[in-house]
Amino acid sequence: MTAETVLYEGKAKKILATDSPEYIIQYFKDDATAFNAEKRAVIPGKGIVNNQISARVFSVLAEAGIPTHFVRTVSEREMMAKRVSIIPVEVVIRNRATGSLVARLGLEEGQVLNPPLIELFYKNDALGDPLITEDHIRLLKLADDAQIAEMKRLAQRVNAVLLPFFESRGLLLVDLKLEFGIANGQIVVADEISPDTCRLWDLQSGERLDKDRFRHDLGRVEEAYREVWRRVCA
Amino acid sequence: MTAETVLYEGKAKKILATDSPEYIIQYFKDDATAFNAEKRAVIPGKGIVNNQISARVFSVLAEAGIPTHFVRTVSEREMMAKRVSIIPVEVVIRNRATGSLVARLGLEEGQVLNPPLIELFYKNDALGDPLITEDHIRLLKLADDAQIAEMKRLAQRVNAVLLPFFESRGLLLVDLKLEFGIANGQIVVADEISPDTCRLWDLQSGERLDKDRFRHDLGRVEEAYREVWRRVCA
Repeated sequence: MTAETVLYEGKAKKILATDSPEYIIQYFKDDATAFNAEKRAVIPGKGIVNNQISARVFSVLAEAGIPTHFVRTVSEREMMAKRVSIIPVEVVIRNRATGSLVARLGLEEGQVLNPPLIELFYKNDALGDPLITEDHIRLLKLADDAQIAEMKRLAQRVNAVLLPFFESRGLLLVDLKLEFGIANGQIVVADEISPDTCRLWDLQSGERLDKDRFRHDLGRVEEAYREVWRRVCA
Repeated sequence: MTAETVLYEGKAKKILATDSPEYIIQYFKDDATAFNAEKRAVIPGKGIVNNQISARVFSVLAEAGIPTHFVRTVSEREMMAKRVSIIPVEVVIRNRATGSLVARLGLEEGQVLNPPLIELFYKNDALGDPLITEDHIRLLKLADDAQIAEMKRLAQRVNAVLLPFFESRGLLLVDLKLEFGIANGQIVVADEISPDTCRLWDLQSGERLDKDRFRHDLGRVEEAYREVWRRVCA
């Protein structure tokens, strides 16, 4: 690689070109946003931690036979990944009720969701990533029926693999947000899997070790990200 | 009937007991609310007009073999109906994009929706009647899978009957909100079908002849309700 060509810059990552049209570099920034970017901050070291946690989690998924865009880590803040076409649907899978779900439907905080609840959101910053139904996805032509079914199937498998993975590290996987991309006609897990995109609670104390510390000003944000890194990567 | 026993008082109607446990009286008020009751007004004569429009529309549905709670009109503002257990899911069926759908998903105002789009909302004033998915309905135990399927099937049939009914009266049925009740194990169309619950546009001019005149301060609100009454009932 020579000079960086930025293909896309998001809120928490930059996507850089490589010499090959088939691969990109994901560069993890320390920038954090919440509530549709109304709240912004820098969490020092977050990019490093999230790159390494994501790399480890993607490796675990690959070992379980779940296709992801991850290729390899290339630096502290960078991973090489397959270049994919991102499906503009965020797939959230929830094992416990918290956050927007509790606010929207009046569920009890922490209520167990069994089977895990899958929710779909339209990945559209201008609209605030609204909740959508499969009928909305068809209307907006965001994905076809087979792709919707495959994303939901993969989300369930990812959750089934990561629940025990995190549990063995003393972490309850409360929920996670997945993005999917298409590469060579195959749907793969893309984006990142980190305390920015998962809710992780300490199994014993229930302490929140994820982006909710930033969202709700709970303090010790960097420490929480580092604690997850320590349990997952060290 | 002797003294009125009010079983339930809603924003636009009161439900009164009758001598029979199987029947109730729906009393249509002139009160109007919008935006989750943040906006309130009285629209003189609305109750009379909506009672009569609803009675006519329920009769048309019954003739088409669609079960409804309607029995007969008993006064200017009152209809007798079967006593039902209301399923707390509002079923909206849309032939054109407008209102909250346009705001939520960024669709073009007036865009034709073919097939008609069905959306489900949790009938819960405290939560602002949020959009919900079938998975949410199962989680909240608002209805079982067979009931969800039956409500969607009936909504499609109601729409298929009412589109030509209104069209022959110079009205475009843009969308409608249905509520369903259970009586003797059967799901029936309940509540009302009126310019409070349907969007109706003049076929020629596109003029809005429904509650949007009140919601958006378009003026001539009573006149619009009366015009629909004239076309449907007179």
